[in-house]
Amino acid sequence: MPELTKARLSLNTATVNQWSLKECIEGCARYCVPALDPWRDKLHELGVDTAVKMIKDNGLQVSALCRGGMFTGPGEAERQAALDDNRTAVDEAVATGANCLVLVVGGLPQGSKDIGDARSQVRDGIGELLDHARACNMPLAIEPLHPMFAADRACVNTLSHANDLCDELGDGVGIAVDAYHVWWDPDLEKEIARAKGRILGFHVCDWLVPTKDLLLDRGMMGDGVIDLPAMRQMVEDAGYNGLIEVEIFSADNWWKQDGDELMETVIERFESVI
Amino acid sequence: MPELTKARLSLNTATVNQWSLKECIEGCARYCVPALDPWRDKLHELGVDTAVKMIKDNGLQVSALCRGGMFTGPGEAERQAALDDNRTAVDEAVATGANCLVLVVGGLPQGSKDIGDARSQVRDGIGELLDHARACNMPLAIEPLHPMFAADRACVNTLSHANDLCDELGDGVGIAVDAYHVWWDPDLEKEIARAKGRILGFHVCDWLVPTKDLLLDRGMMGDGVIDLPAMRQMVEDAGYNGLIEVEIFSADNWWKQDGDELMETVIERFESVI
Repeated sequence: MPELTKARLSLNTATVNQWSLKECIEGCARYCVPALDPWRDKLHELGVDTAVKMIKDNGLQVSALCRGGMFTGPGEAERQAALDDNRTAVDEAVATGANCLVLVVGGLPQGSKDIGDARSQVRDGIGELLDHARACNMPLAIEPLHPMFAADRACVNTLSHANDLCDELGDGVGIAVDAYHVWWDPDLEKEIARAKGRILGFHVCDWLVPTKDLLLDRGMMGDGVIDLPAMRQMVEDAGYNGLIEVEIFSADNWWKQDGDELMETVIERFESVI
Repeated sequence: MPELTKARLSLNTATVNQWSLKECIEGCARYCVPALDPWRDKLHELGVDTAVKMIKDNGLQVSALCRGGMFTGPGEAERQAALDDNRTAVDEAVATGANCLVLVVGGLPQGSKDIGDARSQVRDGIGELLDHARACNMPLAIEPLHPMFAADRACVNTLSHANDLCDELGDGVGIAVDAYHVWWDPDLEKEIARAKGRILGFHVCDWLVPTKDLLLDRGMMGDGVIDLPAMRQMVEDAGYNGLIEVEIFSADNWWKQDGDELMETVIERFESVI
């Protein structure tokens, strides 16, 4: 495997939660990090036009826009509202020049215990969004989330399920492989190989032992138990040689550090661990 | 599906953590709960002989003994020590008249990032334990744990993987289906059907939204999002009509309640929700 340099690093802006999008863009430029993945709340805060100009002026790539999805809802009205918002997300992905729009598909609708129905809603929602996404040439990246998020964030929890959805839905939809969500999967190697040609992103961080919070206790690469080089090998064997995103939610540790020191650590670990 | 009564209820003693094993046995007798599943630490606290006598004197069944497993280790010495302890666990299961010994198989050995190797250690460990277990006619029940425990507790995280292990290892080993660990699995129905003839236990509690702690924030049946009747139907369709265990780890809620009130709630929910 070729040595990894920051030439392939994309900063997911959630990693440096202490920074605004403006600071993230300036930080990427300052540290020669060539790409970023902005979250939409930070994008709206700065303003799409201003953000687009800043990203271009600094010569940055946008590995993805985070995020569309949340297709599930208790009724037709909620699902239509979600679809409208997803179409806006596609437009914003186009405006920012993102390589894809990441989809966190949504969990059980309020009051529901029917995960099969939620999964149908997701399939139908992506299917409906695809018309607009294809017309805009904006690939949709399904991100399977860890099963611990099945209820409240995403009911697509395995690469196998994401691959099935891609098979069913056809062109214009692929997969974002996030190490944190899929490292435990006994079918990991098989399903990454099966995703050949449809891998739209590779996200890294680490699984800490112990993990103190389901959502906000992700680890820096190297501080946990995920065999990241093995996973990079699988992803590259499946033909993905694009940007690798660092996405770390860490309320009690990294989000409390100085942003510049955090950037330096991210780069150092990116080049030495993965 | 027939109505569920407490005639099929087994109390996993971890549910009433505020009680000693002696109090659990007396509690089951007092509330006409016909069975329990003792944890080994509580069993040792009371003493195996005393416990066996009390369980018999009160006419209780033992749905399982919790737990053997933890087969993985950094070296041969640790793995042999685990195996020795597992043989003792088999003997204790025999002594208490348990229907099976539940296996929580173990996670990554200290310092390892090789989950494939851990899984091989688990297969080999169960294989070695089976000689003794078969000689004692004590079935071993592999309990797939939720993927969020892959690193530190059990690297068997799906029913599919547990079924594969049973296929490979042959007679004397089956599966404990715990709703909490497997409810999210898109292959749930298929893999429960595949487990026909080897289901050795069915454990229930509920998945809370939000879940505040990975280990100790399980919900009472009915307070979460798991479709327990649907899962009972699958398990019964696969031929399992035995005892159903209630196993709730709840440090900040149920473990703080009065034990008798908790027992009453367990029975009421067992009969109305599942």
